[in-house]
Amino acid sequence: MSRLVCEKIKVEIMRYNLLKAIKMNTITVAISGGADSVVLLHALLQLREEHGFGVDACHINHNLRGAESDADEAFVRDLCKQFGIKLTVHSIDVKALQQKHQGIEEAARNARYSVFVKQAVTATAHTMSDNTETVLLNLIRGTGLKGLCGIPPVRTCGGDGNGIIIRPLLYCERSEIEEYCYEHGLSFVTDSSNLSLDFTRNKIRRTLLPLIKEINPSFDATVTRTCEILKEDSDFLEQSVTEIARKCSFDNGIKVESLIKYQKPLLTRIIMQFLSHNNISPSNRMVSQILELIEIGKGKINLQKHKFALIDDGILEIQTIFQNYRN
Amino acid sequence: MSRLVCEKIKVEIMRYNLLKAIKMNTITVAISGGADSVVLLHALLQLREEHGFGVDACHINHNLRGAESDADEAFVRDLCKQFGIKLTVHSIDVKALQQKHQGIEEAARNARYSVFVKQAVTATAHTMSDNTETVLLNLIRGTGLKGLCGIPPVRTCGGDGNGIIIRPLLYCERSEIEEYCYEHGLSFVTDSSNLSLDFTRNKIRRTLLPLIKEINPSFDATVTRTCEILKEDSDFLEQSVTEIARKCSFDNGIKVESLIKYQKPLLTRIIMQFLSHNNISPSNRMVSQILELIEIGKGKINLQKHKFALIDDGILEIQTIFQNYRN
Repeated sequence: MSRLVCEKIKVEIMRYNLLKAIKMNTITVAISGGADSVVLLHALLQLREEHGFGVDACHINHNLRGAESDADEAFVRDLCKQFGIKLTVHSIDVKALQQKHQGIEEAARNARYSVFVKQAVTATAHTMSDNTETVLLNLIRGTGLKGLCGIPPVRTCGGDGNGIIIRPLLYCERSEIEEYCYEHGLSFVTDSSNLSLDFTRNKIRRTLLPLIKEINPSFDATVTRTCEILKEDSDFLEQSVTEIARKCSFDNGIKVESLIKYQKPLLTRIIMQFLSHNNISPSNRMVSQILELIEIGKGKINLQKHKFALIDDGILEIQTIFQNYRN
Repeated sequence: MSRLVCEKIKVEIMRYNLLKAIKMNTITVAISGGADSVVLLHALLQLREEHGFGVDACHINHNLRGAESDADEAFVRDLCKQFGIKLTVHSIDVKALQQKHQGIEEAARNARYSVFVKQAVTATAHTMSDNTETVLLNLIRGTGLKGLCGIPPVRTCGGDGNGIIIRPLLYCERSEIEEYCYEHGLSFVTDSSNLSLDFTRNKIRRTLLPLIKEINPSFDATVTRTCEILKEDSDFLEQSVTEIARKCSFDNGIKVESLIKYQKPLLTRIIMQFLSHNNISPSNRMVSQILELIEIGKGKINLQKHKFALIDDGILEIQTIFQNYRN
């Protein structure tokens, strides 16, 4: 069984051409001290020689659970010493970073990503179960195709292509993780923050999923398969748009006339890519508003602090308030 | 509120260009006697003059609940008499029709569809709640993009485009149905078959959905919106394939060479349309097997009783065993 985890990681490394992304770099394992991340670190250490990558680790102490947080940090320090690998610890005051209208979970995630973006390649220990929870969470809150594709196996967290994040355990089930720990005599901590940070995710994990698994005991594997099928569709649509985007060049805005010929699935994605190109993280609300703007043919709408979308003389542009004042 | 139901039906009639599909025909309302179908019948009667369609009704007695089934039939007969519309009753022995490896729910559905296919236009009373249940059911059992689009607002149940089924209540919530009944003093029966035929659907309705609605009380509306977004993507992909299919013409099989250039999302859908064109209801398993066949470039696989897919001399064809014996 423990070989299976390594095999699955290898298959994923090949499937997503991760080594090309890694470019023979060092993979930094984000380690909480929980079973998933301990297994990930151990398995990548087994594979590093064969694949020619280096391994080190980072631990983020969110300082949300007092002495328990510090005990986890001490555990991770010991483990990395024992494995003989370099560890960087980032101590973060999440509560101080938390902004208005932001949950503690969101603030913690942002804090983690601000660490990851500075690293070449970070490996996180998300498993099949995390993917299932994410898909259900998105479905319950409302989503589109991308949200139903689940956790991406590879992504960048910087707009400039920096900070690659890989998830080599995304095809591993909880039982495989447990078996791996048992076979290799690995110890780990039980991360109690997992059980309290995100109320909705906990409710899904603890009450919804057990019920669903009474209907389909292989639900995690079923969702993984569904995500794969949807991801093929989603990637295909995204690629079609990337080709269109390359032709239009987003730097001087987009001619509204050139947009009208596209059907909604492409048009929506062109706008999303256009917003991302302008360093705006696109929401469904923004996209609907811009679609309305295109239909009217002129006007402007606020997108977020200091930034708005404007159609002027047949060109859709993103401007900052500063630019507007200057005009 | 009751006006809202009529308004929603009108919007749906316009949105999906149903009147064109109906071609000024008579709409036959499939009526069980439950609140949803009673509201549908009453609302369509209010709208018939304005839209210039006729309305009649059909009732299918599944004979699964003895005296209760007969009481429902009697209720529906009375109601239609009172509304002054023509009613056809189809009495079906579902248990006798049930085939090996077939659930009672599947046999009942097939029996209903064999009635609908003989009618020009059937209106069924599926609501937003039915759509939510269908999406969850598909997600739990495993699905692709189409399965997550939910219940189609318009479909045909015959391969030759006959037997149009429309679902004018797909955007109505349970509370609106109840309000409508109350305002118009409509009585209805409580269809106890709804609570027993499909074990999994019941479990979703009675235990899963109440939990999900603790997280998102507007979950039905959220799913409806997600289905709309997904349907745009799905329709776009299907249309792209229909254009390709028109060019290849499926009648003499498909040149494997011409298929290889397409990416998997299109290729999968071309194969699905090819199977449907050959009167085979496509399953994911069939499609994967044919994809493997295409990769190998030759061979044959059984699809279903008497029918198989074959690649011979670079052509993918569907043959019946009879044809094979003859060769």
